[in-house]
Amino acid sequence: MTATIRPAEGRPAPVNPQLARVFAPPVMEARRWLTETRLPEGLELLNLSQAAPVDPPPERLRAAMAGAVGAPGEAHLYGAVLGDGPLRAQIAADWSEHYGAPIAPEQVAITAGCNQAFCAAIATLCAPGDAVLLPVPWYFNHKMWLGMQGIEAVPLPCGPDMVPDLAAARALLTPQTRALVLVTPNNPTGVEYPPGLMEAAYDLAREAGIGLIVDETYRDFHSAAGAPHGLFARPDWDGTLIHLYSFSKVFRLTGHRTGAIVTGAARLAEAEKFLDTVTICPPRTGQIAALEGLRHLRQWVAGERAEILARRDALRAAFAGLEGWQVLGSGAYFAWVRPPFDMASDRLALRLLEDQAILTLPGTMFVPEAAAAAGNRALRIAFANADAAGLAEMGRRLAAFAP
Amino acid sequence: MTATIRPAEGRPAPVNPQLARVFAPPVMEARRWLTETRLPEGLELLNLSQAAPVDPPPERLRAAMAGAVGAPGEAHLYGAVLGDGPLRAQIAADWSEHYGAPIAPEQVAITAGCNQAFCAAIATLCAPGDAVLLPVPWYFNHKMWLGMQGIEAVPLPCGPDMVPDLAAARALLTPQTRALVLVTPNNPTGVEYPPGLMEAAYDLAREAGIGLIVDETYRDFHSAAGAPHGLFARPDWDGTLIHLYSFSKVFRLTGHRTGAIVTGAARLAEAEKFLDTVTICPPRTGQIAALEGLRHLRQWVAGERAEILARRDALRAAFAGLEGWQVLGSGAYFAWVRPPFDMASDRLALRLLEDQAILTLPGTMFVPEAAAAAGNRALRIAFANADAAGLAEMGRRLAAFAP
Repeated sequence: MTATIRPAEGRPAPVNPQLARVFAPPVMEARRWLTETRLPEGLELLNLSQAAPVDPPPERLRAAMAGAVGAPGEAHLYGAVLGDGPLRAQIAADWSEHYGAPIAPEQVAITAGCNQAFCAAIATLCAPGDAVLLPVPWYFNHKMWLGMQGIEAVPLPCGPDMVPDLAAARALLTPQTRALVLVTPNNPTGVEYPPGLMEAAYDLAREAGIGLIVDETYRDFHSAAGAPHGLFARPDWDGTLIHLYSFSKVFRLTGHRTGAIVTGAARLAEAEKFLDTVTICPPRTGQIAALEGLRHLRQWVAGERAEILARRDALRAAFAGLEGWQVLGSGAYFAWVRPPFDMASDRLALRLLEDQAILTLPGTMFVPEAAAAAGNRALRIAFANADAAGLAEMGRRLAAFAP
Repeated sequence: MTATIRPAEGRPAPVNPQLARVFAPPVMEARRWLTETRLPEGLELLNLSQAAPVDPPPERLRAAMAGAVGAPGEAHLYGAVLGDGPLRAQIAADWSEHYGAPIAPEQVAITAGCNQAFCAAIATLCAPGDAVLLPVPWYFNHKMWLGMQGIEAVPLPCGPDMVPDLAAARALLTPQTRALVLVTPNNPTGVEYPPGLMEAAYDLAREAGIGLIVDETYRDFHSAAGAPHGLFARPDWDGTLIHLYSFSKVFRLTGHRTGAIVTGAARLAEAEKFLDTVTICPPRTGQIAALEGLRHLRQWVAGERAEILARRDALRAAFAGLEGWQVLGSGAYFAWVRPPFDMASDRLALRLLEDQAILTLPGTMFVPEAAAAAGNRALRIAFANADAAGLAEMGRRLAAFAP
C-alpha cells in the first residue's frame, strides 16, 4: 500500500485530466474577444452574446434587497441548504397555479442559480459512466458539467424545426442512460417545444425509468400565455420530472445567483447533500428579491414579456430584410441563425465583432467537438439584450457585412 | 447499443447510488434536532453548533452592500467567473503583506464560499478513483464532497495534540494520492498547526508531487499575530499549495457566500471551468462587502480577534472548573472536548440539548463511519458563537449535567 515513488515526484501537483479535457467557459472566451479586439471606429458595441439583462432589477426589488442587507438580521446569516421557507412556499403556490396542478413546498428547492440546479439534478441521477441525452445544439454548461463528472453527454439530434427527435432518443437509450434534458424555450435556439413533444418526452422517460430534466429558465417570455405543458398533472410526476428555473432573467438578478429545482422531496434530500457541500446555502439577498418579485411583480413581468415578444418580432423583421440569412429558431431570449457565408462560425463571430461591433456566440460553442471541427455555421443571438432600435441597427450592420 | 428494456422501466428515475451513500448534511440534522426537541423550561438555547457569527456584519459593510444593491449598476450583473478584479487584486496585496511573499491577482479566485473553494480545488486535482489524505477528525463537508465525487478520503491519524501525523501520511501515499488537506486553525478541533508542521507537510507534498490544500478560514483568529507559516515564500509555491479562505467568519457574511482560492494561475484556469458550470460567478454583494472590509476594517478585525481570543480563554476557564472534561483542542472558533461519560457523542449531544439547552455537534459527525459506529465520544463546541458570559453559563450547565 505504501509508495515512496510517484511519477510526479518533486514536481507540481498535476491537473485532473478529466477536467483538463473540458473546454474553457465560452462566455469568458467571448469576454476576452471583447478586450482583445479593436472595434471599428464610430460603431458602438451591440452585445448579443450572454443572456444577461442589461437594465437593473425593478426599483421595488432593489429597495427590498437594500433594506434587508442594510439592516442587521437574517439576510446576513446562513440559511437552510434547500432555501428559505417562504420562497419555497411561494414558488409552490405560483407553480401550482401556473401549471394547474398541486405542487408542495417540500417539492421545491432554491439554488445559487440555475446552472447549480442542473448540477444538483445530475448529481442525484448519475454516477461516472452513466449517460444523459442532450439535444444538439446544447447549452454548453450542461455539456461541461457532464464532461467533468465523467458522465457521457449523448448528442440527440433535432429535426429541421430544431425540436428533439424522440424516435432517435428512444434508439439512443442504453442501460447507462439516466436522463433526458429539455430546455424550453430553448437555449441556444429560442424554440418553444410544443406541448405534445413535452408529453411524449415524459412518456418516454417514464417508460425507460429515467429522469426528465426540464429547464424553463426562459419560461416567462414564452409566446403562449399559461401552462406550456401538463407534466405537473401527471400521476407521480415527481418521480420522473425535474424542473429547473432561474430568477436571473425574469427579475434581472444575474449577479445575485438565484434558481430553483422542483421535483420529489426524496430526490431533494439527495440534492441537499450536494448543495450543502458546494455552497452551504443559496445567497440570501437574491432569495429576498425573488420572493418580493413573485409576490408583487406579476404585472411588471407581463410587461416584460410583451416587450421581449416585441423584440422577437423586431429580430424577425430585421432578418426578413436580409439576403440569405436563415433564422432556424427564435423565441424567448435567443435566435439561432445561419449566415449566408461559407465560414466556420467561430471565425465568423470574430469577424462580425471586428467589422460590425456585433458580439454573438458561434454555433461551434453549442455542438459536439466533431461537429464544431467540421465547421458549424450557426450563430446564437441573444436578441432580448437589445431593444427594437438596436435590433434594427443589427439588421443594417449585417446587411453591410461581408466577411 | 439500443435498448428497449431497462431495470427501472415504468418506474421513477433512480437515485445515484454514489450520492445516496453520502451522509446527510450534519448541520441540517442539528437544525432538525432543534425543531424536534423540547428545551427545558427556563433555559435559553446556547447554540454552539454551526460556526456562524450571530452579530450582523459591521455597519460599514451593510452600508456598502445596501448602496450597491439599492442602486442600478454592476452589483446586479453577472461578474467574471473567477471574481471581481478589484477584490482579487486586494486579496493579492493583503496576502502578500500578511505572508511576506509576493502573490499576484492572477493567483487569486473568488468563490461562492469556502466550501465551494474546496470543491473547485479538488475538481482540479482528482478524478474518480483518486485519493486524498484527510486528517481525522475531519470537516464533514470535505468528506461528503470526496464521497459524492467517487474520490477516496483516506483518514490520516492525528497525535494526542490533534496535529496530523506526517510519518503516517507518508506511509499512506499511493499512486492514487492527489492531495493532503490541512485546516488550520482546525475545524473541528480548534488546534493551530505549528509552522514546522506546515513546512514539513509542504515538503512531503512537493516530494510526492501532490497538492497541499490549506484551508485557513479561521486564520484571522489565530493566537499568533503575523504569518502562520512561510509556504507562500517557497519557490514555485503555486504548483503545490492551494490556499483556501472564507469571508464568512471574519466579516460575518455567512449568508452572502464569499470565499477565495489562492494558487497557480494555470490551476485557476481549470477551476474556472468548474466554477462557471456550478455558479457562473460568485454573488456580487458578498464581494462588495469583502472588498470594503479588506480596505477599511483592519482595525475592526484586530478587535474581533482580541474578543475571540478572550472567548477562547473563557472557554478554557469554564472547562478548567469542570470535573473530568478534557479539552483536546481549542482555538480560533472551536473546542474539541471529551466528556466524562461513557456514551456515544451523538446520543450525548441530544441529551445535552434536552437537558441543558446546549447545542453542540457530536464527534460522530467528524470521523469515519467505523469510528463513529465504535462510539466516538468527543463534542465540537463552536465557542466563538457565545460571549464570555455565555461560556461561563455553559460551564454551569455542564456542571449540572448528568446524562
